[in-house]
Amino acid sequence: MTSTLLSRRDLEFLLYELFDVESLNNHERYSDHNKETFNAVLDTAEKLAVDHFEPHAAKLDEEEPTFDGEKVHMIPEVKEALTQYYETGMLAATHEYDLGGMQLPMTVAMSASSYLSAANVSTMGYPFLSGANANVIKAFGTEEQKNLFLEPLLTGRYMGTMALTEPQAGSSLSDIKTSAVPGNEGTYLITGNKIFISAGDHELSENIVHLVLAKIKGAPPGVKGISLFIVPKYMVNDDGSLGERNDVSLAGLIHKMGYRGTTSTMLNFGENGGAKGYLVGEPHKGLSYMFMMMNEARIGVGLGAAILGYTGYLHALKYARERPQGRHPQGKDANSPQVSIIEHTDVKRMLLAQKASVEGGLALCLYGARLLDDEITAESEEERKAASLLLEILTPVIKSWPSQHCLEASSLAIQVHGGYGYTREYPVERLYRDNRLNPIHEGTHGIQSLDLLGRKVMMNDGAALKAILGEVMKTVGEANQIEATKEFAESLKMAVITLQETTLNLARVAIGGNVNLFLANSALYLEAFGHLVVAWIWLKQGIIAAQKIANATKEDQNFYQGKLAACTYFFRWELPKIEHQCKVLSSLDPTCLEMQDAHF
Amino acid sequence: MTSTLLSRRDLEFLLYELFDVESLNNHERYSDHNKETFNAVLDTAEKLAVDHFEPHAAKLDEEEPTFDGEKVHMIPEVKEALTQYYETGMLAATHEYDLGGMQLPMTVAMSASSYLSAANVSTMGYPFLSGANANVIKAFGTEEQKNLFLEPLLTGRYMGTMALTEPQAGSSLSDIKTSAVPGNEGTYLITGNKIFISAGDHELSENIVHLVLAKIKGAPPGVKGISLFIVPKYMVNDDGSLGERNDVSLAGLIHKMGYRGTTSTMLNFGENGGAKGYLVGEPHKGLSYMFMMMNEARIGVGLGAAILGYTGYLHALKYARERPQGRHPQGKDANSPQVSIIEHTDVKRMLLAQKASVEGGLALCLYGARLLDDEITAESEEERKAASLLLEILTPVIKSWPSQHCLEASSLAIQVHGGYGYTREYPVERLYRDNRLNPIHEGTHGIQSLDLLGRKVMMNDGAALKAILGEVMKTVGEANQIEATKEFAESLKMAVITLQETTLNLARVAIGGNVNLFLANSALYLEAFGHLVVAWIWLKQGIIAAQKIANATKEDQNFYQGKLAACTYFFRWELPKIEHQCKVLSSLDPTCLEMQDAHF
Repeated sequence: MTSTLLSRRDLEFLLYELFDVESLNNHERYSDHNKETFNAVLDTAEKLAVDHFEPHAAKLDEEEPTFDGEKVHMIPEVKEALTQYYETGMLAATHEYDLGGMQLPMTVAMSASSYLSAANVSTMGYPFLSGANANVIKAFGTEEQKNLFLEPLLTGRYMGTMALTEPQAGSSLSDIKTSAVPGNEGTYLITGNKIFISAGDHELSENIVHLVLAKIKGAPPGVKGISLFIVPKYMVNDDGSLGERNDVSLAGLIHKMGYRGTTSTMLNFGENGGAKGYLVGEPHKGLSYMFMMMNEARIGVGLGAAILGYTGYLHALKYARERPQGRHPQGKDANSPQVSIIEHTDVKRMLLAQKASVEGGLALCLYGARLLDDEITAESEEERKAASLLLEILTPVIKSWPSQHCLEASSLAIQVHGGYGYTREYPVERLYRDNRLNPIHEGTHGIQSLDLLGRKVMMNDGAALKAILGEVMKTVGEANQIEATKEFAESLKMAVITLQETTLNLARVAIGGNVNLFLANSALYLEAFGHLVVAWIWLKQGIIAAQKIANATKEDQNFYQGKLAACTYFFRWELPKIEHQCKVLSSLDPTCLEMQDAHF
Repeated sequence: MTSTLLSRRDLEFLLYELFDVESLNNHERYSDHNKETFNAVLDTAEKLAVDHFEPHAAKLDEEEPTFDGEKVHMIPEVKEALTQYYETGMLAATHEYDLGGMQLPMTVAMSASSYLSAANVSTMGYPFLSGANANVIKAFGTEEQKNLFLEPLLTGRYMGTMALTEPQAGSSLSDIKTSAVPGNEGTYLITGNKIFISAGDHELSENIVHLVLAKIKGAPPGVKGISLFIVPKYMVNDDGSLGERNDVSLAGLIHKMGYRGTTSTMLNFGENGGAKGYLVGEPHKGLSYMFMMMNEARIGVGLGAAILGYTGYLHALKYARERPQGRHPQGKDANSPQVSIIEHTDVKRMLLAQKASVEGGLALCLYGARLLDDEITAESEEERKAASLLLEILTPVIKSWPSQHCLEASSLAIQVHGGYGYTREYPVERLYRDNRLNPIHEGTHGIQSLDLLGRKVMMNDGAALKAILGEVMKTVGEANQIEATKEFAESLKMAVITLQETTLNLARVAIGGNVNLFLANSALYLEAFGHLVVAWIWLKQGIIAAQKIANATKEDQNFYQGKLAACTYFFRWELPKIEHQCKVLSSLDPTCLEMQDAHF
């Protein structure tokens, strides 16, 4: 099957050549699997995406869900597609057999679900949230909570949400006002308003399980007073049957630029006395539980951004190959036939830039997935801890880098199409609108940059930074041994030195106590850091391509040539940008910090 | 009147302090005008924009024009707003008194119309095209053509289009197929299909005047065989009354991502024997006439991009001042009240970046307008020629720089709004969608970059390049005398040297005959060149601010502080980016040129 969703050749390169997921099968958890079972999952996902997800993507965008004051209406294709999806069992793919799962590695499961996001990110939004919700209940819920909610969430009978944001607080969770007071039978009564709750209401499932952040009366102020509650739309009886309607109501749908098929809702909890909720884990520790879901969601957002960029790139590539227009600068004879626009160097530039961003972005996210697997199944405790440490520092990068650069790729995909790309006849404008959400939700760029520089880089005396730069330098060492990648090894080594110096210059300010100045230009630090990491990811790909190209089939030679070209592009056109960024950072430029409201 | 459309203080700064439009009044053409009459025009435009253009902008986007197979339907507010606009006489503002005009300088007229574009770029699209169309007929039409079409076009009774693009040719005008054969009474019969014709059909005017590029049977191949025709929707009798319906039909409307209120059409000419057209000027010289309209349209596109970015910035600024959220890194006490987000450094960064782009972009475009005025009314032939030369080399920059960087500003305006910015409750998402058109129409980025490097930089032994860099170095000399701007003068001087060296390295390749390599990375050259020019425009603003700040009122001191801050931002954060770009260019990097189709 050759779709314009994702490149299967690239996906297999990432899984089997770059991240060696087959080695995971040595672990007992994955011992039933092998390359054939992995490929079968990818096949299933691609077919499902092409047959049931892609066909209604444009329609769902044009005919977005509506609310008549009682119920949410949606085109029927969404539910039909999800029914097909549940039948594959993919929703529970990474879970244990006794939960109905397949014990599939995250790396493979996320690759498979990428086909579905590429085909229709709005429809895929629903099960994505359900899956993340189930993971929190599985990790922190009581046995009773797990019994009531886990099976229906993992089979699609129920769906889940994460209900964090409130109108007056936004990203500042410290300021949420939703309150909880103890009620009957161990429940709490929840009262408050939530906003931007994705999949917060619909008729796609029997029930909706909200994971709600709220403060128990008398809790400490700030984030240390936040607790986590399960608040179902319908109460669930002990035998699993649905009980009364809970006091949660849909105040309205939010109309968005893109991602229109995933409802975004304003929810009122407790307008009639209080919505019944079950406390998850201990009181006041809700944010730490929710961070599990948020971290997963952040990787999901980065992957979504990469995937939207990726499929847009493949659409642009197809268009560039098929569309004749103009001639080469050196062959302007008007009587000669027009050439395909892929022959124009500037079109090649735009396609290479997209390729570098989306293949780099996807590889980065799947590296994150591989770390998720290693966190659980690496052989030694030390290796598992090392994977966690790397994942901690990379999470803000995985969330942000694709959100920025694969959105830019989505824009270039439009540009390759010219005027046609601006029309709703081609999917690239929708992909661009969908992708514009990603730098915003699950923590904006600014929030991610504060997390990276203010927390992750500085924690444990820079242990995580040392860990990731150590990995980078290992790759530099390997690349130095290969003629084709020596140039890049040298560039990356210099970039590491530059970033280390920059980090030291900033850390000195932090140690000196001027936290506002230390963090002033953190967004730029995130950009430089991200480019270095993605350059590293590209160098790893370049090394494999350089090693294998000589003895490869003609088709694979082309593929590896493409990898080397994109690697070259990234190292020559992109990575050097961090020099200037690091200069601004090291100079502690106060232009933004010192700008006054009155001067705007 | 304080609207969020444009900053009146900034507009007056540009007009009176930076470009000294009052000096134009020394010329006889503008001798009836003074600062008061100019300001009265700006007042009128702003009031018109707020009262009649802004209120239906969101509605027009949501309820875009439709075609029922016979007629185009549109919300009535468009026609009502345009009626108000015509009553102000602004459509003919720059024309002579005997044409019903006001003899207003372009610089002022374009400033005034900017309010209308900021309020509702879709509605403003119609008169913008009519005005540009009228200018072509005025410049190249026969007396009879002028008598028939000019007055109705300049009063809004008729509207105009530019009908260049065809499905099989796109930007490659050399390949248009629309044909013309001599018919009765000096007319030609036109047959062919045009696509993406903005304002190509509607019921907003009595008649629509298409300016159509077509090839007369037997014409030379390529662009040297293109002629220009006036093809009205309804024929016009000698007494000015409307005659029969011409053989032009609407094949369909194109549905776009943004700019939804300006119809984009597919037009069929001559399905029933041939549409009657009047030849403009001489046969086969049509493209040179059309370039007048295209150059005007290119400046218009750049200005539109700057304006959309500008109003988005003001919306973001307002939001950032009003929205409380979070606390400073050094004051995280959860019991303290939240601060306005404008106090967060990263929000200030995003606002400063927008300010630098949109105020820089607007100043660049108004400099172009001032050159248009100087072309006609500068005292000596030499000065008029100098203005033309500068305008020639700057046109691709004026078109492209705002299209790229003010679109990015539109994106940042969304980002400042957070989740709210992604909803259709706030105008910034619409402004972003509208602005995405600008890098495409009137010649894409790639086309502009070939025009800049391949034609404008190289023409007359680099005369235009010398001219603009000469202007830049004059400003460097001035800035060197002022303590506050010395740092920037030095940076700009280095940038000039870098660009000169880069240009020489490229020119050597051109002279050597390898045109494909010479032009391979032209898009990057356009970016570097554009940043240098905008840095210069910022330095000119910085000089004035630095000179005036000491003796200014408190309010003006704030304004000048803002100018100096944005200038500083541009010089420290933006201009240095060209170093890396010029390195790639000077290295003649062949990565894009050598990339093969099979390797993608």
